[in-house]
Amino acid sequence: MYDCVIIGGGPGGICAAIYAIRAGMKTVIVEKLGIGGQIALSDIIENYPGFPSLSGGELMKNFEDHAKAVGAEFIYTEVKKIEPSTKGISITTSKDAIDTKSVIICTGAQPKRLGFKGEEEFVGRGISNCATCDGPFYRNKPVAVIGGGDTAVKESIYLSKISSKVYHVHRRDRFRAEKVLRDRIMTRDNIEFLWMTSVEEALGDESGVTGLRVTNKDGKTSDIAVDGIFVFVGISPNTGFIDCDKDSQGFIITNENMETSVPGVFAAGDCRVTPLRQVVTSVGDAAIAAFKAEEYVSELEGQGYESSAKA
Amino acid sequence: MYDCVIIGGGPGGICAAIYAIRAGMKTVIVEKLGIGGQIALSDIIENYPGFPSLSGGELMKNFEDHAKAVGAEFIYTEVKKIEPSTKGISITTSKDAIDTKSVIICTGAQPKRLGFKGEEEFVGRGISNCATCDGPFYRNKPVAVIGGGDTAVKESIYLSKISSKVYHVHRRDRFRAEKVLRDRIMTRDNIEFLWMTSVEEALGDESGVTGLRVTNKDGKTSDIAVDGIFVFVGISPNTGFIDCDKDSQGFIITNENMETSVPGVFAAGDCRVTPLRQVVTSVGDAAIAAFKAEEYVSELEGQGYESSAKA
Repeated sequence: MYDCVIIGGGPGGICAAIYAIRAGMKTVIVEKLGIGGQIALSDIIENYPGFPSLSGGELMKNFEDHAKAVGAEFIYTEVKKIEPSTKGISITTSKDAIDTKSVIICTGAQPKRLGFKGEEEFVGRGISNCATCDGPFYRNKPVAVIGGGDTAVKESIYLSKISSKVYHVHRRDRFRAEKVLRDRIMTRDNIEFLWMTSVEEALGDESGVTGLRVTNKDGKTSDIAVDGIFVFVGISPNTGFIDCDKDSQGFIITNENMETSVPGVFAAGDCRVTPLRQVVTSVGDAAIAAFKAEEYVSELEGQGYESSAKA
Repeated sequence: MYDCVIIGGGPGGICAAIYAIRAGMKTVIVEKLGIGGQIALSDIIENYPGFPSLSGGELMKNFEDHAKAVGAEFIYTEVKKIEPSTKGISITTSKDAIDTKSVIICTGAQPKRLGFKGEEEFVGRGISNCATCDGPFYRNKPVAVIGGGDTAVKESIYLSKISSKVYHVHRRDRFRAEKVLRDRIMTRDNIEFLWMTSVEEALGDESGVTGLRVTNKDGKTSDIAVDGIFVFVGISPNTGFIDCDKDSQGFIITNENMETSVPGVFAAGDCRVTPLRQVVTSVGDAAIAAFKAEEYVSELEGQGYESSAKA
């Protein structure tokens, strides 16, 4: 019986473990693949305060070392289901079932792929899904933006203030983004719109992306010289194993205490409905979730449950 | 004319600057005294992920280096007033007035002092105001807790799971904390209550705190051997210069986008109403505030304001 089971070994999961273990809770991190999460795929991170510039892999190595320093325990298995039980909360995995008093879900989210040639190959080397994260690496350089929703339009405006030029590629003849965003993007004079245009291929070499091959509505194919390609065609959270309140895309709805609609189950970071998905926001969420999980477990014990805390 | 003025040079202010500058906003940090904030006073920090163990001063040196790496600009002066103006937002300081389109308030909060002998002297060397931060340094050691409100009782319960023994000192004969907390603390068998007892002096030497001298209601003075003293008699935010929605203690009320009740003015970290006050929560808040400030400024520009962004 654990006090706290953390699902996911990315930045949020590791921070939750640091806080949960320091609070005296018997804690384990359950991770499907390996430590690090999405951020481990990033070539360069320059916005986690304290580390001016390093790779995602290096940052997550520091996080992993920190987790080990506080004595974090890991179980490598896939979580299939989380359900309230008579003992507390029961977690079904690919291996053994796990019983716990509280759960913190830190399973993150994955950007959807469009499926063009070179898209997977150049992720982290010129292809990005986050302007806040990677935009500044293309200061005064040309970039392409792909997508027609709110995020694509917002991020295009954002990039137009940093990059020399934005080629905004969209397969339709108008954006489906909300009107205020559609109006705002039209005021930016360094964005060129490529309407009714489909993406064929990311062009590049060992050093990264050098261009984008597109085909317009007349079937004419051309190459645009860009240093970065930003793809905004949605993101998917990893939340299928839990039955709780979610938004239409599957992101978990929490309150400011990171409580989900299931008592004892908390969520932190990219997998929840949140205004921004960054390493710093994940760790902030995770600390609150662990703090509130400790209060929750403490409350259960006040009601006669026995403490399993290791003093 | 700035796009974004950040008030306060602690962890939140520096993270806000990193995000604001990377977003292409013309940004300045206004700080009264020196870089670092409250956390710079901490002897050891072991819960900022990526740095397993270092001093508050060392952590903030890393933050300051990061701020410099992104080209952050600092103005050293005290902010007296923030007001909406015809140009945007006007900031009155001890020196020149500053005009800006957006403001992020990251001015933090200070724990109140009780005023006993040795209290100031041993802060960061055995006297603490945060169990989540410093409790784990007293694993299996005796500590004293001072205070009778919700925070004092919650933190005492928290510490009782980590420390060998908690001496809970209170000047009255009962806690004013809510009933559920009063009930819960009574279930902890390693908390000894010293009712109607006043604190005289923190005892210690070069290595830190060694005990607490107290006087009971009969006027009898005694020394308790403890390694840590946790004082919970309230905290005060530094928010007097802004007229916006606040709670009864002066903490700024924001929504999840860190927007205050004044358009264009955001707040992040310890100075706002938040479930937890930590370096990780401050930086998370700050990133959201900067992201939303950029959107706000971008919206103003869409309405005909000229961009002052440096590309």
